[in-house]
Amino acid sequence: MSEIDQRRRTLSARLAELKIDAFLVSSSANLRYLTGYTGSNGLLLLTADDAHFFTDPRYAISAAREVSCTVHVETKALIAGATALIARKRIKKIGFESAALTFDAYTKMKDTLTLGAALHPIGAVVEDQRTVKSASEQELIRRSVMLNSAAFERTMRRVKPGLSEMDIAAELDYQMRRLGAEKPAFETIVAVGERSALPHSQPTSRRLGENELLLIDMGASREGYASDMTRVAHTGKVPKRIRDLYYAVLEAQLASIDAVKAGATTRSVDAAGRNVLKRHGLDKAFVHSTGHGLGLEIHEPPRIARGGIARKDMTELQAGMAITIEPGAYIEGLGGIRIEDTVLVTVNGCEVLTPTPKQLLEI
Amino acid sequence: MSEIDQRRRTLSARLAELKIDAFLVSSSANLRYLTGYTGSNGLLLLTADDAHFFTDPRYAISAAREVSCTVHVETKALIAGATALIARKRIKKIGFESAALTFDAYTKMKDTLTLGAALHPIGAVVEDQRTVKSASEQELIRRSVMLNSAAFERTMRRVKPGLSEMDIAAELDYQMRRLGAEKPAFETIVAVGERSALPHSQPTSRRLGENELLLIDMGASREGYASDMTRVAHTGKVPKRIRDLYYAVLEAQLASIDAVKAGATTRSVDAAGRNVLKRHGLDKAFVHSTGHGLGLEIHEPPRIARGGIARKDMTELQAGMAITIEPGAYIEGLGGIRIEDTVLVTVNGCEVLTPTPKQLLEI
Repeated sequence: MSEIDQRRRTLSARLAELKIDAFLVSSSANLRYLTGYTGSNGLLLLTADDAHFFTDPRYAISAAREVSCTVHVETKALIAGATALIARKRIKKIGFESAALTFDAYTKMKDTLTLGAALHPIGAVVEDQRTVKSASEQELIRRSVMLNSAAFERTMRRVKPGLSEMDIAAELDYQMRRLGAEKPAFETIVAVGERSALPHSQPTSRRLGENELLLIDMGASREGYASDMTRVAHTGKVPKRIRDLYYAVLEAQLASIDAVKAGATTRSVDAAGRNVLKRHGLDKAFVHSTGHGLGLEIHEPPRIARGGIARKDMTELQAGMAITIEPGAYIEGLGGIRIEDTVLVTVNGCEVLTPTPKQLLEI
Repeated sequence: MSEIDQRRRTLSARLAELKIDAFLVSSSANLRYLTGYTGSNGLLLLTADDAHFFTDPRYAISAAREVSCTVHVETKALIAGATALIARKRIKKIGFESAALTFDAYTKMKDTLTLGAALHPIGAVVEDQRTVKSASEQELIRRSVMLNSAAFERTMRRVKPGLSEMDIAAELDYQMRRLGAEKPAFETIVAVGERSALPHSQPTSRRLGENELLLIDMGASREGYASDMTRVAHTGKVPKRIRDLYYAVLEAQLASIDAVKAGATTRSVDAAGRNVLKRHGLDKAFVHSTGHGLGLEIHEPPRIARGGIARKDMTELQAGMAITIEPGAYIEGLGGIRIEDTVLVTVNGCEVLTPTPKQLLEI
């Protein structure tokens, strides 16, 4: 049985526990995970003993090649095809991806269903199954991480004062593509000088000057799998304030990495770095969470954050999860520092997949 | 009053007609349209006489710069902040973006709301308002289209047999970025040889050979606005079957363009091209719809399609809509042709914004 078939089997085995007879899946990443399909319009109806995939004629050829279960090509709405099958098979309780489906799509689905069949929200069940990566998925993430770092290194050799944020971002994306990425996993962030204090800024025509910070946050999507890394460089001599800020964030990042292992709570991993920044008087400058899972999507569960809702505080890391560790500190008018690696949770700790060195790069 | 303030005013004026007291907006493109905000996490509460914008601390600095109404920075869930305001202002009927909000986000929103307040699905109201572009939006789309064509032309000068689909896609994306695009508006499609028969294939390592088709479907996102174009080229001498297929599709595309004008139904525009392909015996090879609106998103209403649901058949084009016209014909084993322009609907017809010539390019 192929790995993809096994994933469907694992999900099918959970139907009884979720108190449903079938599961309708329509979000892209979940479809790719459960069928191999890489197109943009598809619908999977999974029951305890079989699986049916619906798509439109644009994807007839590629679905036939990619998908390992029965493929139905619909000229009308995919849900109408699924509904006919649901009626024929007399399926009653149908779980749907309430974390992904829009309210209108839900309503349409509900209105199309035959009498007697009902929809049950089941949240992020597939996403949860996806959090622990198989050996082959780990290898794909590893390859994505290596590619991403190689693109960063190739680009950094060419970076010099005078280039704009957009120039540098274009070069990073180009190098990723040349190395085999389908696309950047998210919009590449290049922020120069005081603009690095905006944690999620978009590249502008602002040029890199002398004696300035340069923050780069980039990830590749390769064979569907994401990577994510942030590094900071500086042109000219690094002022003491910046150097202190940098090494405080690095200390925090290393502390959080050190806290990662199977069984550790996500909250404790966040706290490990946050406490370091607090000791440096920088806790208020750390305005986001410590990290997130990644895989077929750039943001997946688990969130590595302070929590706040009691239940979420107790989320435990498991061996095989791929997560980012990315504390930061942002000071308006001065600039921001963020240092981020992609790491793989192991039984006794973690493996830092990102090979790029972490000293403050001087250009 | 700024154009963005005017857009909120226009929407506010519709609250009574929609039978709601306020409107909660959370989708990125709608937030950008209604507030100027370019970040990824925001929530707008719009009432008949004011507007409040909620975001998290990561976007505090950029929201303060971009957003033209009251900004609230929330350290907890944005909806909690909005709910407090809803309670204070005793708002009862709250419209939500049922076409964009997930079922779980809807449920969470509903559960957070104060007693007495209720949510009302209002579908794609903002999206509908966005279909007719203002003069400044038309100018932004025009600039995006020009940039996209320039990137195509720069790349085509370098294209030759031996380059892979991924090489060509990387070069197209790089040229877009160098010319000032934030990113491609969608994943650039480059399909070589018989792979062009897959209407939405992803670039692979397959190399362009001698005597082969090359299909490129690309769009840029520039200052937030999308463009979209498809062109087909051929290496070496073009076989008669390919040439005939090409000119049948071109004839269909010109027929659909000719049918575009304010007041024409989207169905009639689709039919104009589809009938041409039918006359050539190619109607079954045209497996998708004729086009779509574009603007802040690459796919926006209206759809230029056959319809099927009676109401939708009567959708009329309006002056100021920006749409694509992109018929195609796909023959497995031989290849596919698609020709696509971005056009602007006018009172008497349309303006084809795409400047790139439409003869079958020979390389």
